[in-house]
Amino acid sequence: MARAWHLMQRPKGLPTTNDVALKEIELAPLEDGMVHVKNDWLSVDPYMRARMDDTESYFEAFGLDKPMDGGAVGTVVASKAEGFAQGDKVLTFAGWRDEAVLPAAAVNKLPELGVDPYHFLANLGLTGGTAWFGLMDVASAKEGDVVFVSAAAGAVGSAVVQIAKASGMKVIGSAGGSDKCEFVRSLGADACVDYKAGNLVKALKGALGEIGAKGIDVYFDNVGREHLDAAFAIANNEARFAECGMIDGYNHEAPYGFKYIAYIIGKRLQMKGFIFTDFQPRMGEFYAAMGPMIAGGQVKSQETVMDGLESTFDAFLGLFSGANTGKMLVKL
Amino acid sequence: MARAWHLMQRPKGLPTTNDVALKEIELAPLEDGMVHVKNDWLSVDPYMRARMDDTESYFEAFGLDKPMDGGAVGTVVASKAEGFAQGDKVLTFAGWRDEAVLPAAAVNKLPELGVDPYHFLANLGLTGGTAWFGLMDVASAKEGDVVFVSAAAGAVGSAVVQIAKASGMKVIGSAGGSDKCEFVRSLGADACVDYKAGNLVKALKGALGEIGAKGIDVYFDNVGREHLDAAFAIANNEARFAECGMIDGYNHEAPYGFKYIAYIIGKRLQMKGFIFTDFQPRMGEFYAAMGPMIAGGQVKSQETVMDGLESTFDAFLGLFSGANTGKMLVKL
Repeated sequence: MARAWHLMQRPKGLPTTNDVALKEIELAPLEDGMVHVKNDWLSVDPYMRARMDDTESYFEAFGLDKPMDGGAVGTVVASKAEGFAQGDKVLTFAGWRDEAVLPAAAVNKLPELGVDPYHFLANLGLTGGTAWFGLMDVASAKEGDVVFVSAAAGAVGSAVVQIAKASGMKVIGSAGGSDKCEFVRSLGADACVDYKAGNLVKALKGALGEIGAKGIDVYFDNVGREHLDAAFAIANNEARFAECGMIDGYNHEAPYGFKYIAYIIGKRLQMKGFIFTDFQPRMGEFYAAMGPMIAGGQVKSQETVMDGLESTFDAFLGLFSGANTGKMLVKL
Repeated sequence: MARAWHLMQRPKGLPTTNDVALKEIELAPLEDGMVHVKNDWLSVDPYMRARMDDTESYFEAFGLDKPMDGGAVGTVVASKAEGFAQGDKVLTFAGWRDEAVLPAAAVNKLPELGVDPYHFLANLGLTGGTAWFGLMDVASAKEGDVVFVSAAAGAVGSAVVQIAKASGMKVIGSAGGSDKCEFVRSLGADACVDYKAGNLVKALKGALGEIGAKGIDVYFDNVGREHLDAAFAIANNEARFAECGMIDGYNHEAPYGFKYIAYIIGKRLQMKGFIFTDFQPRMGEFYAAMGPMIAGGQVKSQETVMDGLESTFDAFLGLFSGANTGKMLVKL
């Protein structure tokens, strides 16, 4: 019997095991045009927290007492659809479960790039794509820019650090704790601030001094709240902010009081929100740019892997306690 | 003896008469290349509040125990500079005082547009220019867009309302009190919300219903804080925010807690700060667009005029208590 994680009630703040349940599900019948996939890898990502809320016009909300979904890489075990055969490695959105029977349109055969399939959930998928389009397109980052990226030890953040360095930028990351900061520096970051170690604006000014820069030209925001406010404070004129995530806000119920937001005006800042899926028509361009950076070792992949479908919710919670270094994945 | 308003100490919150003083000043000698101007009209503007603070990288701060400055229209009373003769009407930045002797480079002869000179402090100057460049360039507003403008009964706001209507947009304004809302509607706004009358998001949703719109495509922000937060809440996907001012923040010491700021991501919002002076090389383009709108009566001018140099500080304070309808000016 197949099983899937269900959302049972909408969490207040940080989700708990009371909010979810791992339940048996009935698979759709394998009719013409359908593909039966067994998942090998599941992705858990911070944006999923927002989908647990029933907030108007944000990401599509998860239904109550229904299976959740998300990125997954699997193997075709049976197919009644043209173009799919047993053993094919595929990318689907049928995550949070072990098996699914899906219409062929919801199943994507992995392109042959000579890499392990899980990369398509990481640097060749949502993670790397978010980093690359956010940095290069949304924030128009260019050689010589000073880039600040928050949650730089996280999945998207570590990709941003490496892509920026491979593209001739100076990079300041932030991360929680000295071990993570060491990891961020090992990715090539010119400086890293430990946001748990005290005043963030002061620490960032120290990092700017360390790299001989006056301010930042680009902020890649994964965190929101205090990090975003600090970025306003240290931005150069006409700095561009790629608003990718506000993980620090998802589990806070009290809104954050921004002290430096009015700098948007005097510094002529530009902030732009974006969602990876908007760029899916441009995946070819992305593979062409990112493939060589992975093959050439300029963008290394780092994963935290948890084992088994049962661990999926713990893996997800780990995103909010900082349990992951790099991309968090579940191996089935 | 000439006199000028001096900043004596940096205000905390709303400025008081203790922060400023009207003092006698010595004029520079009328040497070669200099022009002696007697001011006829002084401009007071919300951005001047920011200049009273000594905040890094915002507008240039006023010096302490020094004359403040700002836009002024005057008449040349004596000239030792080529191109300037007694009686010429000129635009300078030597506001907050009655007379000044200035180098010719700081004096601009008014172009002959057949309008009363004070317009160059209003719809043909910073006020109208801020409205026009902010709406058309920064927010890329176009025919058919739904535009929300805060402080719509203020100087810049009323220009935005009229330019937007003249350009085929739908407009929702906000203002404090029913009289001001009536004025905003008289400018052509399709709806106006009274921000003093209760929950702003709810009122704005009512206004959207009234005009048959789902959300806003453009927000022209003069106010910040609760207005900006409400704009996040009612924005359509890919809405553009022109960040012109945050008057509501200038005199608050406690930072504002934004409830809806994370919508920037899911709705792919774009926020851009701007300053009118950045557009000064494009004034010709602006005169060409705005001149006919003023001549054709599509953009009407509305002023609140206070009399005499002594009233300048009260006129300035009036900007924060809502004493003005349209542009606040001081007539000497």
